[in-house]
Amino acid sequence: MNADLIARLKQAAGPHGASEDPHEIAPHLEEWRSKYQGHSPLLLKPATTQQVAAILAICNEAKTPIVPQGGNTGLVGGQIPFNGEILLSLARLNRVRHVDAEANTVTVEAGVTLDGVHKAAASVNRLFPLSLASEGSCTIGGNLSTNAGGVNVLRYGNTRDLVLGVEAVLADGRVLDLTRGLRKDNTGYDLKQLFIGAEGTLGIVTAAVLKLFPVPTQRTTAFAAIPSARAALTLLARLNEASGGLISAFELMSRSGLDLVLAHIPQTRDPLAAKSDWYVLVEATGSGTFNLDETLRAALSEAMEAGEITDAAIAESDAQKNALWRLRESMSEAQKREGASIKHDISLPLARIPEFLDVAIAAVTNAVPGVRPVPFGHLGDGNLHFNFSAPKGEDEPFLARWSEINRIVHDIVNTFGGSISAEHGVGVMKRDEIVRYKSPIELDVMRDLKRTLDPNNILNPGKVVSI
Amino acid sequence: MNADLIARLKQAAGPHGASEDPHEIAPHLEEWRSKYQGHSPLLLKPATTQQVAAILAICNEAKTPIVPQGGNTGLVGGQIPFNGEILLSLARLNRVRHVDAEANTVTVEAGVTLDGVHKAAASVNRLFPLSLASEGSCTIGGNLSTNAGGVNVLRYGNTRDLVLGVEAVLADGRVLDLTRGLRKDNTGYDLKQLFIGAEGTLGIVTAAVLKLFPVPTQRTTAFAAIPSARAALTLLARLNEASGGLISAFELMSRSGLDLVLAHIPQTRDPLAAKSDWYVLVEATGSGTFNLDETLRAALSEAMEAGEITDAAIAESDAQKNALWRLRESMSEAQKREGASIKHDISLPLARIPEFLDVAIAAVTNAVPGVRPVPFGHLGDGNLHFNFSAPKGEDEPFLARWSEINRIVHDIVNTFGGSISAEHGVGVMKRDEIVRYKSPIELDVMRDLKRTLDPNNILNPGKVVSI
Repeated sequence: MNADLIARLKQAAGPHGASEDPHEIAPHLEEWRSKYQGHSPLLLKPATTQQVAAILAICNEAKTPIVPQGGNTGLVGGQIPFNGEILLSLARLNRVRHVDAEANTVTVEAGVTLDGVHKAAASVNRLFPLSLASEGSCTIGGNLSTNAGGVNVLRYGNTRDLVLGVEAVLADGRVLDLTRGLRKDNTGYDLKQLFIGAEGTLGIVTAAVLKLFPVPTQRTTAFAAIPSARAALTLLARLNEASGGLISAFELMSRSGLDLVLAHIPQTRDPLAAKSDWYVLVEATGSGTFNLDETLRAALSEAMEAGEITDAAIAESDAQKNALWRLRESMSEAQKREGASIKHDISLPLARIPEFLDVAIAAVTNAVPGVRPVPFGHLGDGNLHFNFSAPKGEDEPFLARWSEINRIVHDIVNTFGGSISAEHGVGVMKRDEIVRYKSPIELDVMRDLKRTLDPNNILNPGKVVSI
Repeated sequence: MNADLIARLKQAAGPHGASEDPHEIAPHLEEWRSKYQGHSPLLLKPATTQQVAAILAICNEAKTPIVPQGGNTGLVGGQIPFNGEILLSLARLNRVRHVDAEANTVTVEAGVTLDGVHKAAASVNRLFPLSLASEGSCTIGGNLSTNAGGVNVLRYGNTRDLVLGVEAVLADGRVLDLTRGLRKDNTGYDLKQLFIGAEGTLGIVTAAVLKLFPVPTQRTTAFAAIPSARAALTLLARLNEASGGLISAFELMSRSGLDLVLAHIPQTRDPLAAKSDWYVLVEATGSGTFNLDETLRAALSEAMEAGEITDAAIAESDAQKNALWRLRESMSEAQKREGASIKHDISLPLARIPEFLDVAIAAVTNAVPGVRPVPFGHLGDGNLHFNFSAPKGEDEPFLARWSEINRIVHDIVNTFGGSISAEHGVGVMKRDEIVRYKSPIELDVMRDLKRTLDPNNILNPGKVVSI
């Protein structure tokens, strides 16, 4: 990269807006699980939308690619400069521009952490429901760019459903301001949708207007043993009907996963006396002059009579609620402590999940005798973390078969009409894989959009879709 | 249009799929309020997606424009062939493909009426919440293409929020099948968004996967007198907090509107004893072992103590609920019976509505002394039907000033950060007006999308955006 270009970019990024210091750049180059590693000669850290615009105008003119980065918590390599691209950190665009309790909106810049958005909402007694394990460090710009999911999707939707407006800088540096934040606006194409879930390949999100919700005053958490994955679906429908749609989480767990948690995670215990192959963790939230515990208890009793559950416990205190959630949230950690595992972030049409579990577990078990399936996930959204632990003592040979196992699972997912990336996005990890499963027409339209919005291919090139 | 082309198109449309009979074509050429009138030599009525695809392939090759039409209930002229285009009715694509109570989805073809979707949902004890006055004749393809709103947006969102998947035919006849209907799928750009609210200018929607919801078992309807429009906002926040977001409708009415209803609509009566300048109709819906009436009653008592309302009545029976809704739903009819009126379908940032009402009513009153403001609408969504009845006895001169009044109001809407088309879309009615209010950058990106997806400009040309 020539010195003049670097000088102009540093100028455009403003005071304290750039670094060529390898020590400062280094933490931005590696994905947190060390799966991906990039390199970059220049880190730009603009503090305003106008600075981002100035940077992109220069990059576009010089046909110099950039890779945008938020909290660097992505799991598919979307935020890593693999080919020495300029790294554009949005972390310093971190102002909360406006919180509006009446309109139930908050306008934040891309670099505000998800936790920061929660705090801004709480400051006016409102809820921003998006919730992820990485919420302390991930940024809202990254959440939008990856259409992040998390634990409350069943009730509140994905990130896309929570966005009322976007401010984005186009490839050539023009600022597209779509931050009116109206609930209803049918004056043309809804351009903000282009930038949500596009992983920074069609424009750089610099700010967003987000929906806020009332803070629920009641929360009921239950843990139920179910006779089959099939029963989970019937149970979910029953509970949603009984509560009028107040179920905010419905998490499936297998006994194999629970056993790993009980074995590896301190201070955990089995909430139920008898063992079962499958469990669900259910949470409902709401407000009003009613007893949510009672609503859920009555519905669970009926489910027991109908044979949809075999046992259940409703948490009586916050400590008990947290203990139940700890079982679910420790699942990945427990699996890690047990040894090597191969994971899949998939979604399926809800009704087909039981059959999928049978078919896909059989296929992987057939390929790898002794493999230990540990499926769990956001069943209410059709989203499974479809994981397998290595046969005991065979970590190395198992991991060597990563791609093969992925292929087996993803082919079956596709046959069942599912998605091979429910939450995490495409990045580089699944860029070539989606070509196998999407129709050529869909890929063509994706490429057409990319060429239209980024004709010089400077925005996170090589991510999501190759042109 | 040459005979060979017409013959090929008729062939492509299949048996009973075409008509050149002016009597059969006529009802499709006129918008229902007789505001717009078009002409067309050929009506095509394909019954399958493949027939639509074949038709578009021919049109694209011949550069022959088409105008798609659903139930012909649009209000902005989007469905009218103004320049002798071929008319493409989707009415015969009317199959309900699949209803899934477990996944809470229904897959329907574009020509199914909204009422038909309601019935399909009800057949599995589910709710499809989109609700419009024209639901008996409007089609779901039209609802998607215009991102229809209606009375339940506050709780359930606009049409866009209710769509999980789309099947669309591209300009060149390729079929883009995005009907997996998954709740979570982050495998690339969310292409279905392109076709929602695009009024048939970027592709022809042939089918959709829609979200279903539990049918609420409780419904509470209340009518409250409020001291000011400002108080309505505080009240809305209070009621949503108290009910945990169960408010499904929150409709503002002025005394002027109520007076017109009471004067012109038989069997209506004022629900409250004392008069007030402003009223709200509130509805909450939910399910569970609780008393929704009681929740709302308690919240309204607190609102009364806080001075946010001056009087209120909660309906005690379905008959009373319907009577309250009749007041709101008769507003347009009553205004029509009173004489001429000029209307605006606008939305505003919620917090700015009270100030907007003051400023805009003053501006119009200043321009037209004696004009009678009749504002009402979906306050919860920031959406006002900002209407004015003519000064008494001055219908003709008032209507002559339609554009002038529109300009006054829309300029103020724009100053307040609002939208000049909240629900009804752009069509031809507001195509040139949006150019005044949108940024050139936004319009450029809209045109770029149009050129990319419809390079020969055959899809509903001249609607939404001119290229």
